[in-house]
Amino acid sequence: MMNNTLYTTLLLLFFQFTLNAQSNNGLPMIGAQMIIEPGQSDEEIDQLFALMESTGMTVCRIRMFESYLKNEKDDWDFTLFDKAFDSAQKHNVKIFATLFPSTSVDDIGGVKLPSSEEQLLQIEEYMKHVVAHYKSHSQLFAWVLINEPGVGDLPKDDFTQKRYQEWKSKRSITAFEEKFMSPQAFLTDYNTWFLNWIASKVRSIDQKTALHVNNHMAFQLVREYDFPKWSEFLNSLGASAHPSWHYGWFSREDYTMAFSANCKLIQSGAIKNNFWITELQGGTNIYSGYFPLCPTKEEISLWLWTGIGTGAEGIIFWSFNSRKSGIEAGEWGLVNYENGMTDRLEEVQKINQFLKSNEKFFRDKKVVESNISILYNRESMWAEKALQTWQGPTTGRDYGSTMLSSIEFYKFLQNEGYQPNLKELREFDFSKNNYDGQLIILSHQVVMTDQMIKNLRGFIEKGGQVLIDGLTGIYDAQLNFEPTSDFKLQLLTGGEILEIKHLPSNTQFDIHENIVSTGFMTEIKNKSAHEIYKNNSKIVGLKNSIGKGTVTWIPSPLALENKNSKGNLKNLWDDLEMDQQFASNKILECDKEGLIHHTLKSKNQWLHIINNPTKTSIDITLKGADIKQLNDGVPKKVDQKIKIGVESTIILIQKRKSL
Amino acid sequence: MMNNTLYTTLLLLFFQFTLNAQSNNGLPMIGAQMIIEPGQSDEEIDQLFALMESTGMTVCRIRMFESYLKNEKDDWDFTLFDKAFDSAQKHNVKIFATLFPSTSVDDIGGVKLPSSEEQLLQIEEYMKHVVAHYKSHSQLFAWVLINEPGVGDLPKDDFTQKRYQEWKSKRSITAFEEKFMSPQAFLTDYNTWFLNWIASKVRSIDQKTALHVNNHMAFQLVREYDFPKWSEFLNSLGASAHPSWHYGWFSREDYTMAFSANCKLIQSGAIKNNFWITELQGGTNIYSGYFPLCPTKEEISLWLWTGIGTGAEGIIFWSFNSRKSGIEAGEWGLVNYENGMTDRLEEVQKINQFLKSNEKFFRDKKVVESNISILYNRESMWAEKALQTWQGPTTGRDYGSTMLSSIEFYKFLQNEGYQPNLKELREFDFSKNNYDGQLIILSHQVVMTDQMIKNLRGFIEKGGQVLIDGLTGIYDAQLNFEPTSDFKLQLLTGGEILEIKHLPSNTQFDIHENIVSTGFMTEIKNKSAHEIYKNNSKIVGLKNSIGKGTVTWIPSPLALENKNSKGNLKNLWDDLEMDQQFASNKILECDKEGLIHHTLKSKNQWLHIINNPTKTSIDITLKGADIKQLNDGVPKKVDQKIKIGVESTIILIQKRKSL
Amino acid sequence: MMNNTLYTTLLLLFFQFTLNAQSNNGLPMIGAQMIIEPGQSDEEIDQLFALMESTGMTVCRIRMFESYLKNEKDDWDFTLFDKAFDSAQKHNVKIFATLFPSTSVDDIGGVKLPSSEEQLLQIEEYMKHVVAHYKSHSQLFAWVLINEPGVGDLPKDDFTQKRYQEWKSKRSITAFEEKFMSPQAFLTDYNTWFLNWIASKVRSIDQKTALHVNNHMAFQLVREYDFPKWSEFLNSLGASAHPSWHYGWFSREDYTMAFSANCKLIQSGAIKNNFWITELQGGTNIYSGYFPLCPTKEEISLWLWTGIGTGAEGIIFWSFNSRKSGIEAGEWGLVNYENGMTDRLEEVQKINQFLKSNEKFFRDKKVVESNISILYNRESMWAEKALQTWQGPTTGRDYGSTMLSSIEFYKFLQNEGYQPNLKELREFDFSKNNYDGQLIILSHQVVMTDQMIKNLRGFIEKGGQVLIDGLTGIYDAQLNFEPTSDFKLQLLTGGEILEIKHLPSNTQFDIHENIVSTGFMTEIKNKSAHEIYKNNSKIVGLKNSIGKGTVTWIPSPLALENKNSKGNLKNLWDDLEMDQQFASNKILECDKEGLIHHTLKSKNQWLHIINNPTKTSIDITLKGADIKQLNDGVPKKVDQKIKIGVESTIILIQKRKSL
Repeated sequence: MMNNTLYTTLLLLFFQFTLNAQSNNGLPMIGAQMIIEPGQSDEEIDQLFALMESTGMTVCRIRMFESYLKNEKDDWDFTLFDKAFDSAQKHNVKIFATLFPSTSVDDIGGVKLPSSEEQLLQIEEYMKHVVAHYKSHSQLFAWVLINEPGVGDLPKDDFTQKRYQEWKSKRSITAFEEKFMSPQAFLTDYNTWFLNWIASKVRSIDQKTALHVNNHMAFQLVREYDFPKWSEFLNSLGASAHPSWHYGWFSREDYTMAFSANCKLIQSGAIKNNFWITELQGGTNIYSGYFPLCPTKEEISLWLWTGIGTGAEGIIFWSFNSRKSGIEAGEWGLVNYENGMTDRLEEVQKINQFLKSNEKFFRDKKVVESNISILYNRESMWAEKALQTWQGPTTGRDYGSTMLSSIEFYKFLQNEGYQPNLKELREFDFSKNNYDGQLIILSHQVVMTDQMIKNLRGFIEKGGQVLIDGLTGIYDAQLNFEPTSDFKLQLLTGGEILEIKHLPSNTQFDIHENIVSTGFMTEIKNKSAHEIYKNNSKIVGLKNSIGKGTVTWIPSPLALENKNSKGNLKNLWDDLEMDQQFASNKILECDKEGLIHHTLKSKNQWLHIINNPTKTSIDITLKGADIKQLNDGVPKKVDQKIKIGVESTIILIQKRKSL
Repeated sequence: MMNNTLYTTLLLLFFQFTLNAQSNNGLPMIGAQMIIEPGQSDEEIDQLFALMESTGMTVCRIRMFESYLKNEKDDWDFTLFDKAFDSAQKHNVKIFATLFPSTSVDDIGGVKLPSSEEQLLQIEEYMKHVVAHYKSHSQLFAWVLINEPGVGDLPKDDFTQKRYQEWKSKRSITAFEEKFMSPQAFLTDYNTWFLNWIASKVRSIDQKTALHVNNHMAFQLVREYDFPKWSEFLNSLGASAHPSWHYGWFSREDYTMAFSANCKLIQSGAIKNNFWITELQGGTNIYSGYFPLCPTKEEISLWLWTGIGTGAEGIIFWSFNSRKSGIEAGEWGLVNYENGMTDRLEEVQKINQFLKSNEKFFRDKKVVESNISILYNRESMWAEKALQTWQGPTTGRDYGSTMLSSIEFYKFLQNEGYQPNLKELREFDFSKNNYDGQLIILSHQVVMTDQMIKNLRGFIEKGGQVLIDGLTGIYDAQLNFEPTSDFKLQLLTGGEILEIKHLPSNTQFDIHENIVSTGFMTEIKNKSAHEIYKNNSKIVGLKNSIGKGTVTWIPSPLALENKNSKGNLKNLWDDLEMDQQFASNKILECDKEGLIHHTLKSKNQWLHIINNPTKTSIDITLKGADIKQLNDGVPKKVDQKIKIGVESTIILIQKRKSL
Repeated sequence: MMNNTLYTTLLLLFFQFTLNAQSNNGLPMIGAQMIIEPGQSDEEIDQLFALMESTGMTVCRIRMFESYLKNEKDDWDFTLFDKAFDSAQKHNVKIFATLFPSTSVDDIGGVKLPSSEEQLLQIEEYMKHVVAHYKSHSQLFAWVLINEPGVGDLPKDDFTQKRYQEWKSKRSITAFEEKFMSPQAFLTDYNTWFLNWIASKVRSIDQKTALHVNNHMAFQLVREYDFPKWSEFLNSLGASAHPSWHYGWFSREDYTMAFSANCKLIQSGAIKNNFWITELQGGTNIYSGYFPLCPTKEEISLWLWTGIGTGAEGIIFWSFNSRKSGIEAGEWGLVNYENGMTDRLEEVQKINQFLKSNEKFFRDKKVVESNISILYNRESMWAEKALQTWQGPTTGRDYGSTMLSSIEFYKFLQNEGYQPNLKELREFDFSKNNYDGQLIILSHQVVMTDQMIKNLRGFIEKGGQVLIDGLTGIYDAQLNFEPTSDFKLQLLTGGEILEIKHLPSNTQFDIHENIVSTGFMTEIKNKSAHEIYKNNSKIVGLKNSIGKGTVTWIPSPLALENKNSKGNLKNLWDDLEMDQQFASNKILECDKEGLIHHTLKSKNQWLHIINNPTKTSIDITLKGADIKQLNDGVPKKVDQKIKIGVESTIILIQKRKSL
């Protein structure tokens, strides 16, 4: 007779497997947040779900406001949401239900972290009722445990501070570490603890619905997200991507690129689980948003194709309809104020039709894993945040520089026709036996821990290549300055840092012909490597062979200068002859910058989704064989030279023998 | 035998009538704040009043510092101020006495609201002594109850918060309303309560002196001024207008226009009472002022004529002499540091002479009520303030946009030769039977309450016309978003809002030939009106007939774009053929923008005061008949074409049969 | 038998004399801060001191961290620092030991003021141990009592506030004074008290080591430094000069000029004591610094020569090596990360060699006291800080204007070949009998106290000349506005201020041909002086004779406009024929602006150190006789016309009969 516990465990493992499997045979599910509010008539709700269905939407998200789930006597009352769930059933729409316990009326985002024991109890009570009530509903697809976790700074309330003290009491921490790194290290662990606490509470009631979390403002807040740990109790991970709130570092023309990077970053964080886009701006801002906008229909299309290309199981817009009162009322919606069609929704419908008619090409789709990985790490972001003195115009030391440096590489490689990964270093799989033909890029990652260096060393020994720029590794995990100590990064670089000099603003320092650094220049002391770049007598770049692999090290910020000195990374890339080594996934050459390119595989075919988000057309020349264009279910022959129109997308399909 | 209470009531009514009557047979009284400070000799005070008299000044204002009214033993001691009052008597200068109970030494503005019961008692005690002592003085003209009420934000002290709780407990308020609108709604009521409390305390001692209040920073603080209620216990209302503190939204060349709008706004708020300019910047800033300046003599003249033109009973500069110590010492004065003549005071003297020699033309002067009223409302300002996310460069959503949109219309109409009203919606008289030939403009008034819509509907039915632009009426009084509900404004517009889209910055959206919107574009769903403007298939403007009147509705921000797209409102105005309908008060055409024009009537004549505040001359062509130029008491014939020199003013007089 | 107290007093006086004598026979000692940290090996420390010795360094500074002076059991443990002191001995390096009691780990600057009685006791305990242990060490050269005193604003803690109340209770203070001036007046006294308290505690243990303090951010913080009082208990005063933290008001090309002014200001504050540069930026910033930089080798040279020229007994870079962890790790060092040579250190070595080979020319060197003194005062800085309304673009009223106005004069005179003094007014010696040929400049010193005016009057009567511009003396010490009172400055000017007018921004007001004011214009009422400048009928400049001297008064901001209207001060200077009167120390004419010139005397020779910090060469024409160029120990003949290359320095030597 089977032991009960064992049985439960096996059952959970089984569900775990099921929950992580592709939801729709690989065909991306497109949907939107359905705003369910008191005052909506049955007809209105049904009209909305009907419109979803008729535009090809198969999934929605609903925020389960505690305040809307109670009647005037404060008793639980599920009438409103039952209506929504039933209407979803009628129209074949699956539901991501967002747990949303009570919060203040102007808290648009919801509870991120608890601030008292009472609140924990209240949240638990809330879940007991809500999870139990809906867990068996046919349409329930996933529980969203917290809406957009991540708070930016460690809360100062007593409850949190007490837990911080406990956390510190179990660790040996240097004084500097405590001041600068620990608050952020704790916050990361604390977010994980709270998410896991909610997950376990849900699981104690409902063992078979997928658990999901969506992450916002990823370029800043990834510093407090420990995705590998989350992946153990989640079944899917999602991106909340709202250019008007999140993409202030970029110009509007770069929003598609930024969204692509955002997707890759979250897709990497999903680890073995499915990747979703749980929120994508669907409509206009009025008073909300730091950089307000209304997406054009072209952007809706570019973003949808980007999401699909990065392997999303589904894409849920925020939002379908819009709130009727308070903050963000009348904003964000895909539908118009009559709950009717818009040019944006028509675009969604068109893409749904395309997907439907080309369904077979998406069956069991997988992301083609790139052979190039740009790796950032959380500790570098912590250091950079802690060490801010003054927000000046200094390349390389401003808040955001470490992430932006990685994104500049991402943009460059995308524009070149590569589809690089963007991963936290811990998300990279260092356990393989062979890394031939693989490249890791470390761009201005100021902190490198001993373990990271050890992992990278193994990667290189097993045939991998590493390209390092910027002030990578100048600090260890305790913020000790490495160049004046033993400089552990020399295990990779074969050389040490002799001097770092701050450059005057608007000054370039020559690394090599047409390759310049900005913000800082770094002089190297070579120990055992090959000198590749010199400025007068100063060594500024090394190449080091380790085992079967090599490291190229130019410890000055090159990527950050790519913005101003167009071609900086291109010149580096060419000079290092990188194309010759890593172009295996690259199927095209283009005549100007701007393309964002993603590749999926399905059976023995590759699907190339190529976006031109710019305001000028781009001519591409195909290099790979057996490439056809996909449109209405039947791949068509295509010229070797194709013009991709402004703000448009083409889908190419390629037979590949080996996948 | 007459009942005592009835007698008192009648007496008060009689005084009320007297107090509101014209002070000087219509001839504007010009004066200045007299700084009375310890340490001034009798000679100095007398010299100052003598200079007032010799420059034609007939009124002053004196701040009754509690700290200067007590001797070293803290006993009441009126010596210093008695001296000033007696000197004023000797030189025939009337006095506005500003109640100024104790406050901290760096509080340059004085008490705006009480913060404790003790303070209320202390203020009452102060008034008992001061009001009783001076109430019968021959020169006392008015009590200024509070200097510049209005605080910007609800104070956080316990005393205020307790009253706020009481206020809320008597109302049914939605959660959003409480968060966003109630603090400002309460603050408005609370200001009224405190002013009324002071008024009643003064009236209990002195029944026959006029009660006055002066309002500063009007373009922002009108949101907390309930002028109609104030008008019930005040006898006159005044403007405090200091470009260096208040006109930061404008360039210096627009200060005369801004001052004109400021005057019209306060003059409207005076309702049945007299309108004054209680503070007008008279001299230089040194360390004070957000945008420091010293008025030129040309500006002094332009501003005086603007004040006279907008119907002020009198204009009081801040200040005559300047403070001798502390903040603002040596600043603001019309006189020089020897208490002698300046070019600015000479200009005042000249205008006083002009007024004197043309006295008869001002007898029983009245403002010619314009047939065009630009109506703003407080709720729109509350919403805009509450919903601020980020101070970005977005037209239409930034703090101040709702008022600036109205002012852009004001400026445009002024430059065209109109003299529009600028009124809070509640100040408009909706009780008449016929509104033929009347136009109301609602420019980007984001909140419209049910009552406002009802009143406007009545206005239109009775022949009035309404022109609406911007996001007018997208919220109701509870911040519900109207376009997704029943959109009550359609009672006026005959159509609904289908979509609002945020436009990229620096982008225009075409409404019609040369008419563009900015910040947002709004698409209309027509229900029962006539489509006047379309962009491709999108309806963007409607004309709706209701009863005898019509509504023109273009729900995109047009006025706010007038700043950048010169001619935007002019093109709209022409396209709507507005001149043909509303030009009855317009007597001129001009060859370029810039004129600020005000019209008074006196007996069977109209007085046109036409300012050219620009740095280039403007040619005007007179259209009306019987127009002469006024200079030295005798109207002179004038050409049909007149050149108005840079920074100068001309006064025209026109016979009109019907007034 | 000698009384003990008398003996001690005489002994102290003797040491006082000794301690203030020149340390190195006049040859400047060059050195650097040695960072001594746990974890450094004996070899590393010795290697560093050896490098100091080999590059000609003879002095270092060491921060005596309390936390590094205690072992894990919290017992005192001097091992680490003993090692450093002994290594210094071995390599003939003297030590400035900085007292550095416990502070928080991110407090990079150390304790500036106490915040409790406990802290005072703890500091005293710290000193007992540290001073006693090292007072007899052969290398100990000076105790640095506090690192960089000065806090900017009066601390709000109870301990400080209580002392502030006590301070106020002993004074008669007006309300305005208390609000605006007293907090800063107290803070100045309080800094002095705390420094003196530390000095007396050290002296109770160690009577024979020099006491030193170094001052940072001097252009702002001199307002809280009472140098004359400090000079009574200190033996030397030092400048902390870090362009990246302190020179944000200036462009990089002006850093040498700013450093020169900074040196002169501290050198003046040293009074009878020696002047040092205790901190000078030696290496790069990474994350620290408001305006980060790495000094070039050219800057290192320019700054060293500037320090030498201004009479420094020694110059100590911050720092030799760099910190290994936490804030500023890897920053500021002269050496590279291998503790080896850099281009900056090579430059130091070269200059040390030059000094050594020309040693005799520095013997008993003294600063040639300039006949021109630019005098600022603390009260003007207090007033300006207290009266800030809004940080706008207004010349003359912004924070920093009073000091910047003085510095503009300094820069102009330097560029002309003068070497003016820059002194707090109290640092000027008003006790002499004759001031023939001496000029005092008061530039925009808004406060003048009665005593200051009295002293200046005496100076003029005894033959001195005074040149006054800007709003000098518009306030007295209590912030009373002088022009509306008796205007005490007229004791000097012979006239009063009739009006001050704020000028529109970007507007100039003509004082005379090519001489303009900005920000403000001031009209004068002449009483007894000679009118020198008029604008139309307005008197704007006076010349007044008093006794044997004269005063030139143009009470509008001229110096502040020199930045924008190039030549403004030059034209004034020429028009006033100043060269003819004050050129006695001037030995050259140059063809363009930029030179920074300092003059030392040694025996019967003058040493002219002439820096060209600009990016273009400057041609000079020598005027004086007997001038030779100094290079390798032997003065060489030199042409009358010399080209000074970009960013370089020449040393001239001149025989002078009378010194």
